Amino acid sequence: MPNPIPRPAATISAIAAEVGVSVPTVSKVLNGRSDVAPGTRARVEAALARHRYKRRPRRPATAGPPLLDLAFHELDSAWAIEIVRGVETTAAAAGVGVVLSELGGAHRPQQEWVDAVLARRPQGVILVLSTLGQEQQYQLESRSIPFVVVDTSGELPGGVPTVGSNNWGGGLAATRHLIGLGHRRLAVISGPEDVLCSRARIDGFRSAHDEAGVPVDPALIRHGDFTVDGGYRHGKELLGRADRPTAVFAGSDMQALGVLRAARELGLDVPRDLSVVGYDDLPLAGWTGPALTTVDQQLRTQAVTATTMLLQLARGEDPPLRRVELATDLIVRESTAPPPNA
Amino acid sequence: MPNPIPRPAATISAIAAEVGVSVPTVSKVLNGRSDVAPGTRARVEAALARHRYKRRPRRPATAGPPLLDLAFHELDSAWAIEIVRGVETTAAAAGVGVVLSELGGAHRPQQEWVDAVLARRPQGVILVLSTLGQEQQYQLESRSIPFVVVDTSGELPGGVPTVGSNNWGGGLAATRHLIGLGHRRLAVISGPEDVLCSRARIDGFRSAHDEAGVPVDPALIRHGDFTVDGGYRHGKELLGRADRPTAVFAGSDMQALGVLRAARELGLDVPRDLSVVGYDDLPLAGWTGPALTTVDQQLRTQAVTATTMLLQLARGEDPPLRRVELATDLIVRESTAPPPNA
Repeated sequence: MPNPIPRPAATISAIAAEVGVSVPTVSKVLNGRSDVAPGTRARVEAALARHRYKRRPRRPATAGPPLLDLAFHELDSAWAIEIVRGVETTAAAAGVGVVLSELGGAHRPQQEWVDAVLARRPQGVILVLSTLGQEQQYQLESRSIPFVVVDTSGELPGGVPTVGSNNWGGGLAATRHLIGLGHRRLAVISGPEDVLCSRARIDGFRSAHDEAGVPVDPALIRHGDFTVDGGYRHGKELLGRADRPTAVFAGSDMQALGVLRAARELGLDVPRDLSVVGYDDLPLAGWTGPALTTVDQQLRTQAVTATTMLLQLARGEDPPLRRVELATDLIVRESTAPPPNA
Repeated sequence: MPNPIPRPAATISAIAAEVGVSVPTVSKVLNGRSDVAPGTRARVEAALARHRYKRRPRRPATAGPPLLDLAFHELDSAWAIEIVRGVETTAAAAGVGVVLSELGGAHRPQQEWVDAVLARRPQGVILVLSTLGQEQQYQLESRSIPFVVVDTSGELPGGVPTVGSNNWGGGLAATRHLIGLGHRRLAVISGPEDVLCSRARIDGFRSAHDEAGVPVDPALIRHGDFTVDGGYRHGKELLGRADRPTAVFAGSDMQALGVLRAARELGLDVPRDLSVVGYDDLPLAGWTGPALTTVDQQLRTQAVTATTMLLQLARGEDPPLRRVELATDLIVRESTAPPPNA
């Protein structure tokens, strides 16, 4: 059977005629201008989506100075700084300014933010630990604004460019290290249950147990956030148990810092009485007391890779890789040792 | 004597006529467009400066979506995150996007960055630990782009709006606290000597000694950067001395973290053998081992204040305060105690 003949792309004037508005009105909607009535705007957006309209990418020569948008679900801790630096350095080298936004802890951007992006017409968008809704995604696509997601937090529709790291492998390596030291009673404190990377790490934790024939105690699997306070609260509870674990694998270096604090308050020495593994390898990890054994997930390289990919997409190039997962490395420092009475 | 009659403001066409170029060429220079020959550009800039030309502020209705520029001399550590969050939250509430730049450790922006700002035409510019050169300052003024400096690092020409904190008072309070505990041999590790805030803190350190009649040992006054590694290196050296200090006042919480590490390596218990005071009160300070006594310099509030001031200037309003110094607070936690053998 021959391939179907591709439908000719809809033009702005065809869309305007179909909706019964003027061509400038369609342009205003595409440019994110606020001076269009909400009802009209919705009808235009619907027609754009129906026709899978895709504006030709803006040509740099006629446009204002280039920008890209970088949005975090939350700007907390030194974790975010690693990503910001990777993006900023790469963008600046390409003469592109970085507009930074915090989505106030939401894993899906507010429509307000998307409207601001449409009005700014950036070269592209990098989302950290966030994903777009289907309609939001289409709004960017119809304006030919590419986007890349860093450290995927959920299932993404096929074809969305992503950069992440091997979370399952990170969980596996950290747990193998602890089991190899002789630990048999291990706890894990990961991120929220609905964040995919947390689940992958816990699965790696389980796999390392399985291959060593060590049973997992479900009571020692905890979900929290990635904050120091979360690590502290879970740490206090886990380490206060009569059958306390001899090792804790934390979901972030910040969480590990909270576990170290909990151990100190309970009079437990790390690593003599308790081993602790962090995640991220922030610059901080080399300086805690004791220095943290942790999983390096190459945050800066993730950011550089995502930015490079985005700028390629913005130039209309096809990046050689669209869904990248960087390897993770275990960095052994001072916070892990054989268990007591081993 | 009567006031001199104010000279009428130069118009773009007068400037164009004087330089012998077209009006659009002057406009291009004002808009930061790159398609003007460097020689012509320099002559136009010189004429703008000579006439103290000041463009009328752009009207929001006709302009693109509003942006402000936030530039750091260096994006290091959790310190920067506090400022970024304060600026981003305040700007977002006003519907203004934040373009973030790192000046690569320079305390004076590169001309490249200034050119990008002129081309972006933001509502205004916030500089953190950086100041503009006289010409750069004039370039922003002639485009009516206001700017505010956070945490002044040097002498600023009169009239430049600044937000900082009472560094001298912070140094005084930290040192009084240590002397009050009985310490007589105190070290200080501050920032670079050419950064004004470092000098102010050391002067506060000296004043607290003077009022208590305790002599300052110049060998115990150190200048470094604000990094963990800087604190570690100075800490190692100071604490390795035969006549080591019983207390160290660090220039930042990150530096204090380095001092804690140095103490641990030398087998010194904090606070039993050594007291340590940090600076900044980062979220981290409550979680180190032991938790840090530190000086809260209200970084987030500094950022909010600077942003509010900038947005007022951008609207053509006169902010009630243009040179703000916030008070600092000593936060006593676990890292300070009476000296050994007190």
